[in-house]
Formats: sequence, C-alpha cells, structure tokens
Amino acid sequence: MKRRLKELAELVGGTVVGDGEVEISGVAAIEDARVGEITFVANPKHLKMLAKTHATAVIVSPGVPQTDKPLLRVTNPDLAFAKILTIFSQKPYQAKGIDPNAWISTTAQLGQGLSIYPFVYIGDRCRIGDRVTLYPGVYVGEDSSIGEESVLYPNVSIYPRTVIGKRVFLHGGVVVGSDGFGYVKEGRKNVKKLQVGTVEIEDDVEIGANTTIDRAALGKTIIRRGVKIDNLVQVAHNVVIGEDSILCGQVGISGSSKIGSNVILVGQVGVVDHIEIGDNVTVGAQSGVMNDLPANQAYTGSPTLPHRDFLHMAAILPKLPEMRKTLIQIEKRLKRIEETISSERKRE
Amino acid sequence: MKRRLKELAELVGGTVVGDGEVEISGVAAIEDARVGEITFVANPKHLKMLAKTHATAVIVSPGVPQTDKPLLRVTNPDLAFAKILTIFSQKPYQAKGIDPNAWISTTAQLGQGLSIYPFVYIGDRCRIGDRVTLYPGVYVGEDSSIGEESVLYPNVSIYPRTVIGKRVFLHGGVVVGSDGFGYVKEGRKNVKKLQVGTVEIEDDVEIGANTTIDRAALGKTIIRRGVKIDNLVQVAHNVVIGEDSILCGQVGISGSSKIGSNVILVGQVGVVDHIEIGDNVTVGAQSGVMNDLPANQAYTGSPTLPHRDFLHMAAILPKLPEMRKTLIQIEKRLKRIEETISSERKRE
Amino acid sequence: MKRRLKELAELVGGTVVGDGEVEISGVAAIEDARVGEITFVANPKHLKMLAKTHATAVIVSPGVPQTDKPLLRVTNPDLAFAKILTIFSQKPYQAKGIDPNAWISTTAQLGQGLSIYPFVYIGDRCRIGDRVTLYPGVYVGEDSSIGEESVLYPNVSIYPRTVIGKRVFLHGGVVVGSDGFGYVKEGRKNVKKLQVGTVEIEDDVEIGANTTIDRAALGKTIIRRGVKIDNLVQVAHNVVIGEDSILCGQVGISGSSKIGSNVILVGQVGVVDHIEIGDNVTVGAQSGVMNDLPANQAYTGSPTLPHRDFLHMAAILPKLPEMRKTLIQIEKRLKRIEETISSERKRE
Repeated sequence: MKRRLKELAELVGGTVVGDGEVEISGVAAIEDARVGEITFVANPKHLKMLAKTHATAVIVSPGVPQTDKPLLRVTNPDLAFAKILTIFSQKPYQAKGIDPNAWISTTAQLGQGLSIYPFVYIGDRCRIGDRVTLYPGVYVGEDSSIGEESVLYPNVSIYPRTVIGKRVFLHGGVVVGSDGFGYVKEGRKNVKKLQVGTVEIEDDVEIGANTTIDRAALGKTIIRRGVKIDNLVQVAHNVVIGEDSILCGQVGISGSSKIGSNVILVGQVGVVDHIEIGDNVTVGAQSGVMNDLPANQAYTGSPTLPHRDFLHMAAILPKLPEMRKTLIQIEKRLKRIEETISSERKRE
Repeated sequence: MKRRLKELAELVGGTVVGDGEVEISGVAAIEDARVGEITFVANPKHLKMLAKTHATAVIVSPGVPQTDKPLLRVTNPDLAFAKILTIFSQKPYQAKGIDPNAWISTTAQLGQGLSIYPFVYIGDRCRIGDRVTLYPGVYVGEDSSIGEESVLYPNVSIYPRTVIGKRVFLHGGVVVGSDGFGYVKEGRKNVKKLQVGTVEIEDDVEIGANTTIDRAALGKTIIRRGVKIDNLVQVAHNVVIGEDSILCGQVGISGSSKIGSNVILVGQVGVVDHIEIGDNVTVGAQSGVMNDLPANQAYTGSPTLPHRDFLHMAAILPKLPEMRKTLIQIEKRLKRIEETISSERKRE
Repeated sequence: MKRRLKELAELVGGTVVGDGEVEISGVAAIEDARVGEITFVANPKHLKMLAKTHATAVIVSPGVPQTDKPLLRVTNPDLAFAKILTIFSQKPYQAKGIDPNAWISTTAQLGQGLSIYPFVYIGDRCRIGDRVTLYPGVYVGEDSSIGEESVLYPNVSIYPRTVIGKRVFLHGGVVVGSDGFGYVKEGRKNVKKLQVGTVEIEDDVEIGANTTIDRAALGKTIIRRGVKIDNLVQVAHNVVIGEDSILCGQVGISGSSKIGSNVILVGQVGVVDHIEIGDNVTVGAQSGVMNDLPANQAYTGSPTLPHRDFLHMAAILPKLPEMRKTLIQIEKRLKRIEETISSERKRE
C-alpha cells in the first residue's frame, strides 16, 4: 500500500512543507527508516537526526523549520504517527473459523465471523459476539458474554458470569473474575467470605499480560469504557475504574477503592482499600495511596504528597545525615553560648 | 431456600431483636438489598443506612439500638454475614466427571467423584483425591498429589513432585513448583544451581490468580495449613509460611525466609532472603522487611520500623523542607549571637 | 551413580583434606545430609554444624581447618556445590516425541528429538530446534523460532514473530511478545499506538514464572545472552537487558530503558522509561530508578542514591521525630539567648 504525503496530511489534519506528492509505503523509527518510509520527531532533542535519516518524509511539530526533506507539520506528532502507523500496519480482520479442537458448550450462543483456536473452552450459556478472536488455551466460564471484535490472547481465564464489552483486548494469561480476597478472622482461623459478585469490563478496554481482575464480593467490579491496564496489575474486588484511566505495570488496587476517570497511576503504585481517587489525578511511580486524593492534581510518595511537595522533600532526604550533624554542632554552640552568658552573669 | 431469622440466629450464635419469624431468602449489600434479603452493618459509619435499606433484616453489633426492622445482634457482624452468605450461596458440589479431552496418564491414581475438564493434563503416577476439580488448561506434573475437594482453576501449572493438601483452592494461572531463582557467579557468568527440592501446600490453603510458588533448591518450600495468599504474590524457594498467615496482593518473599503463623503482610510488601518474621506480626503496605521481625508487633516502612514509629516519622517527612530552612536560619542567628558575644568581650 | 571424593575435587578444581577415596552418591543441605552424601558450608556462621552433620564429606572454603571428616577445599564452595549438584542430579534429556493431541501447523519446521506435550499449539511457519521441550498449554505464535534444547514450561504464551535462542528456559505462565503499553491522548481518549516490533531472547536465558516481556513498538525488545529473570517481572517494550544481568522477583522496567551487562536489580525495583543503567550496577530492593545510573556502582532508594548514602540516610530517618523536637527546643533556647542579650544591651 502506498499513500501520497498530502493524503496522509489530510487524514491526520496536518500541513505539508515541501513536496506533498512523494509516495509513502511504510513507517519506521527515525534511526531505522528507509527510503519510502515516514518517521517522526516528537522530542526536540532528536531534531538533529532530521539531517541523517533516510526517511522520505518526517512528521514534526509546528515550530520545526523547513528542510530539504518533505515535512508533515501537525500539532501532536506522536498522535499523527500513531494514526499513520495504523493506516499502514493494521491488518484487516480475517475470520479463522472455529477449530474442531475447541470445546464449546451446545448451549453457547456464537456470533458470526469468529476465530476460535484449538484448546479454547466456552462454557454453558456463554454469548460470544461477532468477529471475536479466542486464542489457544482461553477459558470462558459459563454465563459469560464477550462483545463483538474482542480479542482474548492465549491462556486467558474468564470466570463464570463475567461481562466483557466490545473491542476489548485481554493479553496472554489475564485472569478475570477470580475470587476477591476476603476473609474474616474467627480466632486465628480465616473464614472465607464467598465472593458471589461479578466483573464487568466495558467497551474499548485493553488489559496487559498476566493482569488479574477479581470478581466482587457482592455486586460488581467495574472497568469502564476506554480504560487501559498494563501487565501484572492487580485489581481487587469491588474496585471501579473510571473511563479512559490508565494503570501502568504492576499497579495494585485494594478492595472497594474507586478510581476516577482520566486518571493515570504510574508503575508499581499501590492503592489501599475503600478510598477514592478523583478524576484527572496522576500518581507517580511506586507511590502508596493511603487516603482519598482530590481531583485534578498530581501526587507522589508513600504516603502520597502533592507532587511538588514530594519533590522538595525528596531533594532534602539525601541531606539528612548532614542536617543531623549540623543539629549536633548547633547544640554544642548553643551550650557554649549559654555557658558564656551564664558565667558572665555570675561575674556581674 | 428460605430460613427464618431465628434459625439464622441460632446458626451464627446471635440474638434476634424484633420478629424472628420473618423469612430470609438471600443476602445482599445494604444499598442493594431487597425485601426478603438480609444484610449487615459492620462499620458504625453506615448505621444511618439502616433506615433506608429494603432488607428484611439486618445483622448488627451488640451496641446497635432497636429499630422497626428485625435485627440480628452478633459479636462480629462481618463473620456472621460470611457464614450466612455461605448458607445461602454455596452450591453443593456436583461431579462433572472426566472429560474425554483431558490427557490422563494411565499410571495416575484417580479418586471418586472428580470434575476433570477438557485440556487438563495429569502426569505419570499422580494421585488425585476424591471430588477434586481441575479446570481447563490445568497441568499436574508427574508424581504430584492433590488432596480431596481441592479446586485448581483454569491454566494452573503444578510442576512435578508437588504435594497439595485437601480443600486447597488455586486460582487461575497460579504456578507451583517452578525452579527457585538460584545462580552462582563464575566470573560474570551465572551458573545455575539445580533446584531439586519440592513444594508442599497443606490443607485449607487458598492462593490467588497468577501467584507463583517456587520449588526448594534442596528440601521443601512449605505453605502451612490455612494460609491465604492473594493475587500476583511471589514466594521464593525454601520459604516457609506459618499457619493461618495472610499475604496480600503483590507481596514478594525472597529465598529461605520463614514467616510465622497468623502473620499479615499487606499489599506489595517485600521480604529479603534468609530472615524470620515472628508469629502474629502485621507488616504495613509496601514495607521492605530487611531484618528479622520479633513476634506480636506491627511494623511499617522500608526498612521497617515499629508501626507507631513509622507513623511519627512519616508525619514529619513533608516538613523536611521547612526543617531545613529553619536549620539555616538558626545557623544565621547563632552566628549573629556569637559575633555579638565576641565583640562584647573585646569591648570588655 | 557414585563418585570418589578425589574425582569430585578434580572436577571442581579443589583439594581434598582427609580421605579422598570415600564414595559420594548424592548431595544434600548440611542439616539433612545422610551417610554417603556431600554437603557444603558457604557461610562461616554454619561452620559449627560441621561437627553434627551426617554427611560423608563437606565442601568448605580454604580457611577451614581439618576435621575428622573429609573436606573438599575450594575457593568458592557455593559454585563447587552447584557443579557437584548438577553432576548428581541432572537427568539426561529423553525425547518424549510429539503427542497427537498437540496442534502443529503443517508449515512449521520441526527439529529432531522433540518433546511436544498435549495441548501445545505451534503456528504457521514456526521453526522449532532440536531437542526442544514444549509442555502442555504452550502457545507459539506464527513465524516464531525456538532454538535447540530450549524448554517452555506449561501455559507459556509466545506471540507471533518472537525469536528465542538456544538453551532458553521459560517457566510456567511466561508471556513473551504481548503488546507494549503505548497510547497517545487525543483529548481524554487513549489512542493505541500499534506495537509492530518484536522480542528477541538470546541463548542461555532463563525467565521465571508469570513474567511478561512486551514486544517493541517499532524495532526490538532484547534480552541478551545469559540473562536470568525471576518470577512476576515486567519488561516493557523496547527495553534492552545486557548480557549476564540478573532481575529478581517483581522488578518492573519501563519502556525503552537500557540495562547494562552484569547488572543486578534486586526484588521489586522499578525503573522509569528511557533511562540507562551502566554495566556492573547493583540496585537494592524496592528502589525506584528515575535517572541514568553510571556503571560499576551500587545504588538504593526511591529515588536512588549511592548505596552508602542511602544507608546513612535510612539510619537517620527514624530519628526524624527526635530531630524535629530538638529543632523546636533549639529555637526556644535561641530566643531566650537573644532576649537575654537584647535585655543586657538595654541595661547597658
């Protein structure tokens, strides 16, 4: 497939500087790009690579001056590149059909145009939407439903009664609907609280490899539309994650906490149970969220502080040993002064 | 199934306040409960919801005053609710039989009343107890044994020679018996120490989704009776976890460390290798345990402090920038004083 | 199998003190060893166990004095033990053949002497080297290759176009080649950046249970020769891990970061995106690496400090409350002194 640069400019809402007739046949990183390919510079630090790249055209931000190479000027080069990459790289869906080595309940309702690989298990009364792909080793427990065009990668486990929306991507080894972690102590013994709730994953969610989403104790664990979750994330029972929020790798969210919409939790953040994080909050890497966090702010630390306060604090931490020495010296100086004053008084 | 409130009171050892003859047919959270259902209030903050709930009866703690709604007074409402939930929600076990799409060694010994799903693999000389459930994609390596009434959820992997007790629940994607992480440097090269030990999981243990338990280098990794482990937890080789202990999500325990009984490690705690944590210890979220922890105390922090000391320290951390400013001012004031004194002396 | 002690000494380059003719038939930990077995003492603390062990011979370091038990003196007892353990415990490879319940594309190229278990899936055009073992539930996506003598444990998922070297061990539930976590915000909406790169794992790599390695956005994620990765580790897109490096349990490495060779990242370390860690660096448990780390040093903390500085800082953290009290007292004393001086001046 080839596209003229000016066509691409139209598709992403940018303007061409230079020859808009050049033909583009693919995309690549700036250091790897070959003739015929388009690349991008999002970071001003990399602008000097413009002169050296073999790419035929380069996506840049508005401020970048003309070069001898055709440029595609856009407000957000990163976004434009993502869209152009999709144009060139996304393969159209092709139904593989249903492999005879899959085990499918006779009471399951199957949509059209499916791709069901060998060793898939689909339980009683499941509803599988059109053009769904289930890779080898996927288990879908009874009474679950999967919306159209969703893709479950190999060895994903969906416990019974789970509801999964449209265009949801669950990567290898994801577990959805496992029992929430709920016990009550009777003496030292841990008495299990049966976990009789469910999980609901709305449309356009993507969940990374080996992430786990527990079913609710009662009621629902809910992952709202457009949420993106990275690998090895733990989402406990009764958690609700608001629309378009992002959970990076190894984040853990404890039971019943509510995460607002458009929130970003950076890698390895932990959130205690029964708290709320407001909309548009960003929480820095490895932070421990132990209280409600009001909306529209950035926080870092364990326990969390407003991000700027964390930076001030963190900058001083390495100076603690010096501060302690200073304190000891100050006390000595003080003592000397006090003695001086006291002895002078006596003299007087 | 319906039960009169007074019957439930007998079963959980509580007393009815109001009409004990009302019939209960199910359980629900206080905000979702409908007529005919019982709910509970464990947290005094939620007592005001008593007036609004549609529940037919409410489990409460002893101090709660009579209302127009029948109450079930118990010492521990949380525990009573767990027991009543089990009464209404636990389905009796029904054997599914052995699916012909499972692969079972002819030398395996199989109990009665099994539920073996398609795509299960049971290796040579395994012993599978009565009423065991193995979901699709479960692998049980040779010479392993699984005690009666245990449930292995989809895609669980049990390496050879693992011993699993009775009534053990292993959730989706759990790996038991993988090689411990042991290498010796020979120059820069990492020489593997063969991991020839095993894993033993005693009765009544539950392990959450995608948690990993490594086999011992020599000897055994042991998870004792009644231990409950959450999702994505790492238990390294030769670790021993004492009876009734609780490991929350994403905890990691390094090689050869011994965790006492009735211990609670909260989410994302890390424990270094070769240390001991005493009985009845609680370690707060994200703590890093780098030394032995004596029994019967709570600890938090990385490295850990007694919990109260941690709280004092953590409360002061945000004041560090201010403390540093104060220090600088103090030094100036001291200098001024010292100069004053010195000049006065000269005058004298 | 039996070996004389003097033969073992030759094999590991050590010297016998005492009777070199004794026959050794196995290895064990010092507290479990029986007659006929060899054990080792690496830690001087355990030397007193020498008198009590039932072992027939003991591997020790050069300084250890003669006893009535034959000793095998070596520079590195840990390494010698690892080698002797391998001599006694490593079973020779036996090909299991290809189980008819595996699903193998007719376009896959298969080597000699394979062990392919039931419920394995091998996609189109895959190349599987000689003596490779694929356990039940392994998925190998199209156009992938696996080098000779590699072992993929149960339920491992290899996405398409992945390249895996020789003698690579991937433990249960590992996912290699899942999509990198890349989105661009368009307003609040997360627009996916297609992940069209690959993963390359070089020879002699071992990766622990349920670890995840994402494919590159463009280009390659690379795990170099001899790298050892523990359980539940997250390696993001476009990361490069240098030769012989070690990543302990639950480490997380964000996108595009480069880890040098012979590096050790201890448990639960997090590394932000787009940074570099130099060769021979060690990073302590739970550290958060937020900047480039120069080579040949040890670091700890979040953010990281040179390890010694971290220890100094950490030692003072518990004294913060006391320091703050001291500060307040100092201010009072200062005020008193200043008032004294000021009143004396007035008097003058």
